[in-house]
Amino acid sequence: MAKPKKEPRPKAETPKGFRDYFGAEVTTRAAMLNAIAGVYHRYGFDALESSAVETVEALGKFLPDVDRPNEGVFAWQDEDEKWLALRYDLTAPLARVYAQHRNDLPTPYRRYAMGPVWRNEKPGPGRFRQFYQCDADTVGTASMAADAEICAMLADALEEVGIPRGDYVVRVNNRKVLNGVLEVAGLLDPAEPDRFAEERGIVLRAIDKLDRLGPEGVRALLGEGRKDESGDFTKGAGLTNLQIEKVLAFVKANELVDNAILNATNTNSEPDQRKPLEGRNAILCHFLSEIVDWSKIGREGVDELEEIATLLAAQGYGPDRIVIDPSVVRGLGYYTGPVFEAELTFEILDEKGRPRQFGSVAGGGRYDDLVARFTGQQVPAVGVSIGVDRLLAALHAKGKISSAERGPVVVTVMDRDRMADYQAMVGELRQAGIRAEVYLGNPKNFGNQMKYADRRGSPIAVICGGDEFAKGVVQIKDLILGAQIAENATVEEWKERPSQYEVPRAALVDKVRDILAEQS
Amino acid sequence: MAKPKKEPRPKAETPKGFRDYFGAEVTTRAAMLNAIAGVYHRYGFDALESSAVETVEALGKFLPDVDRPNEGVFAWQDEDEKWLALRYDLTAPLARVYAQHRNDLPTPYRRYAMGPVWRNEKPGPGRFRQFYQCDADTVGTASMAADAEICAMLADALEEVGIPRGDYVVRVNNRKVLNGVLEVAGLLDPAEPDRFAEERGIVLRAIDKLDRLGPEGVRALLGEGRKDESGDFTKGAGLTNLQIEKVLAFVKANELVDNAILNATNTNSEPDQRKPLEGRNAILCHFLSEIVDWSKIGREGVDELEEIATLLAAQGYGPDRIVIDPSVVRGLGYYTGPVFEAELTFEILDEKGRPRQFGSVAGGGRYDDLVARFTGQQVPAVGVSIGVDRLLAALHAKGKISSAERGPVVVTVMDRDRMADYQAMVGELRQAGIRAEVYLGNPKNFGNQMKYADRRGSPIAVICGGDEFAKGVVQIKDLILGAQIAENATVEEWKERPSQYEVPRAALVDKVRDILAEQS
Repeated sequence: MAKPKKEPRPKAETPKGFRDYFGAEVTTRAAMLNAIAGVYHRYGFDALESSAVETVEALGKFLPDVDRPNEGVFAWQDEDEKWLALRYDLTAPLARVYAQHRNDLPTPYRRYAMGPVWRNEKPGPGRFRQFYQCDADTVGTASMAADAEICAMLADALEEVGIPRGDYVVRVNNRKVLNGVLEVAGLLDPAEPDRFAEERGIVLRAIDKLDRLGPEGVRALLGEGRKDESGDFTKGAGLTNLQIEKVLAFVKANELVDNAILNATNTNSEPDQRKPLEGRNAILCHFLSEIVDWSKIGREGVDELEEIATLLAAQGYGPDRIVIDPSVVRGLGYYTGPVFEAELTFEILDEKGRPRQFGSVAGGGRYDDLVARFTGQQVPAVGVSIGVDRLLAALHAKGKISSAERGPVVVTVMDRDRMADYQAMVGELRQAGIRAEVYLGNPKNFGNQMKYADRRGSPIAVICGGDEFAKGVVQIKDLILGAQIAENATVEEWKERPSQYEVPRAALVDKVRDILAEQS
Repeated sequence: MAKPKKEPRPKAETPKGFRDYFGAEVTTRAAMLNAIAGVYHRYGFDALESSAVETVEALGKFLPDVDRPNEGVFAWQDEDEKWLALRYDLTAPLARVYAQHRNDLPTPYRRYAMGPVWRNEKPGPGRFRQFYQCDADTVGTASMAADAEICAMLADALEEVGIPRGDYVVRVNNRKVLNGVLEVAGLLDPAEPDRFAEERGIVLRAIDKLDRLGPEGVRALLGEGRKDESGDFTKGAGLTNLQIEKVLAFVKANELVDNAILNATNTNSEPDQRKPLEGRNAILCHFLSEIVDWSKIGREGVDELEEIATLLAAQGYGPDRIVIDPSVVRGLGYYTGPVFEAELTFEILDEKGRPRQFGSVAGGGRYDDLVARFTGQQVPAVGVSIGVDRLLAALHAKGKISSAERGPVVVTVMDRDRMADYQAMVGELRQAGIRAEVYLGNPKNFGNQMKYADRRGSPIAVICGGDEFAKGVVQIKDLILGAQIAENATVEEWKERPSQYEVPRAALVDKVRDILAEQS
């Protein structure tokens, strides 16, 4: 293949919206995912790694008559004119895998999956077109024990990676309870499921805005509508006041029950977790069953929440870790039964320096129609997805992981002809499990070698020139202590606490090990 | 988005040439890569994870005037009409990353990378379009210490994942020595590097066929040419007999030296690894320097091999692990200096049941022009790539990893209303670090529960019905022992060695732990 003479040089740049990850960015994420995988495995979940590439058809994002796939995924045509695409999440591939391999898989099938997904969306600050997801799903059982198990597993996973108990809570809600509320409010008729679909859409979007608009803004959207600051009018669902109160009571049930408990007198006794549901969750379920009133689907939803809470209490997961909370709104539009969200409750400072709660790091729920797309059969399933980047950010904020990895011990090169001796030194250090390397740049300028050690975050430099070889010793420089002394110490302190030691060559490994132990 | 009424169901299938990985297939690979990463890290190498997507321009696979990218990569156009593609290896992205971030990276830059790559090639048995690579490279130094270090690291990595010393050998060759041979044979003129390029291509291809054609076949290709069994004639390089002998002596140097050593008398004394190069590697280098004769480039290559062997010997890596071996041909066309290959020397049975050596699992070498594509500056670099699937296959063949993972302890469901109690049991088991799950399928048919446990590879089933709850006990069934007894035992043995135990409920965890310990 002859090349044209003056080929312009290619630009060395990542495609727009993509990035590279270096050193500790890679290893801390890998360690976190590894810890989570350990918890999932202990719960009987099996690993699954599907390929990054799926047929667009299997991803189910597009109409069959659309020639060119929409935005949203990265797609191309293969040699058979078939459209292929990079997966945009780990759930669509799970549905495809389960439909394809269901005869070889156990029922129910518990699986976890971790890996990158790709979104062909406008990138923004902190929003990339490739990012990690970490999912666990149970396919093939309608038992609430599966939902409860995933909530418990999520709590365990958070603690395993370093979020202490009390710094997180898993909140559980149920789409069916909302449907019950909508039914008694006259907005859902099981006999005519499509009727009032538009109004229900408005209701879902309205309660999703509770955080932003407050109860009064939501009230307006549930009723006639709402004019925002700019003067734009958003049409409301047209509910009556009574209907509006029902919906708001559901969304705010948690708060109402908290107030009721505060006002009561004898609620200080600790509930026994092993007995049928007691305490706060029981009061809440009772309250919810009053809201959904005669609605069959609503009562079913309340029963499910009660069952989840009871199963969790039996394993010792009380309201300090997992709570029923109807204010969980995210996912209510997507899931068909229980939904849950893991929230970190400690405060961090936002970009303007104001304290705020860290917020959600994981979410999930029950969905029933993903596999049916392929097989025509409804297969009940429930799953959870951990926001990998959010959880990593939380661990950084808590000081659980550091972005600066400790570098290797650097053996400097004073005499190029002694390279074999320097290699022998790092060889011994590595044999002892100590991260170590010889400086392999141009050794002429010793200052450059020390600059290199600094850039590498090296804790120790080993120095050995002609004099040292003649005397059978090595110089070992404690770079961490050296940097501290250089910054803070008086001359007297500097003399008392030398940061450089001369030891016999045979004592190299022991001395390095001692200094590393002191540093950590 | 309204859907047409009768949308055909999508097919649940992986795209052609892709596959799914289940359970132990995922975890054993992850564990192996994790062990290798530990070795790389100890050698001072830093992790790098670039994105799966690169610009086609940066991958450098295509001419700028080609509108539609060639076969070989999966490529598509983004919204700016720019061509993007999935990476086809980890080296091209390294060159891009180094060119892009070189001011922020240490010099030299040691990095490792592990992850999937994609090839738009015809899939075949065992050949997939997505597979893992595992690379380590040192960019920015011409020092042979970098090459030696990578050879040592490769040996350490193989031992770390479970290939014992003696079952592998890292063979080292050097492109410059071949160039020296070509120079003294009159096929390379440093003043006119393009002259004889066609002949050199024929020579390279010919010696690459040594395994298949034998010395006589190669001799024919180096000379006038060769007619194969079908009668097709392949044109040769047209070398004289003297030239041919030179080339063959280089390729077969290893064998010739082995014979020379066998014929000598006093070669049984163990060479001292810490002294200047002695023994077999010294004899071989002496032999090579005679072959390359007056060639400057050839002598440079021999010196490099000698330096690598000396540096390795200083760290205790002798010819039992790393040998100079001019019969290494793979990579001689691609690399510019030292090339190396890790070969597993134990025998396995091929598909026809004949014993053969397992063969190569890793390879690498020195290359100098990858970064120059971007910056115009030559940046010396050396790297190694481990064949992840080949090495996994080797570990399977050696019985180091098993494709069947031990499944979870399964707590069966005898009474659906007791789900909370069953959940409490698995909760306790998991707290004790034991993999455990409750059966979440339809519990009506107990036989199905035992079939499920069997399919899951469960070591133990826990059984607890109304009687057991009343007595405060549980039944614990050793499924491994049970299966052995069912297969082999007489009735007497069956009575003597029960595989099912009744223990107090409080002793559940201890008894399960005991049985698991006995099983392993």
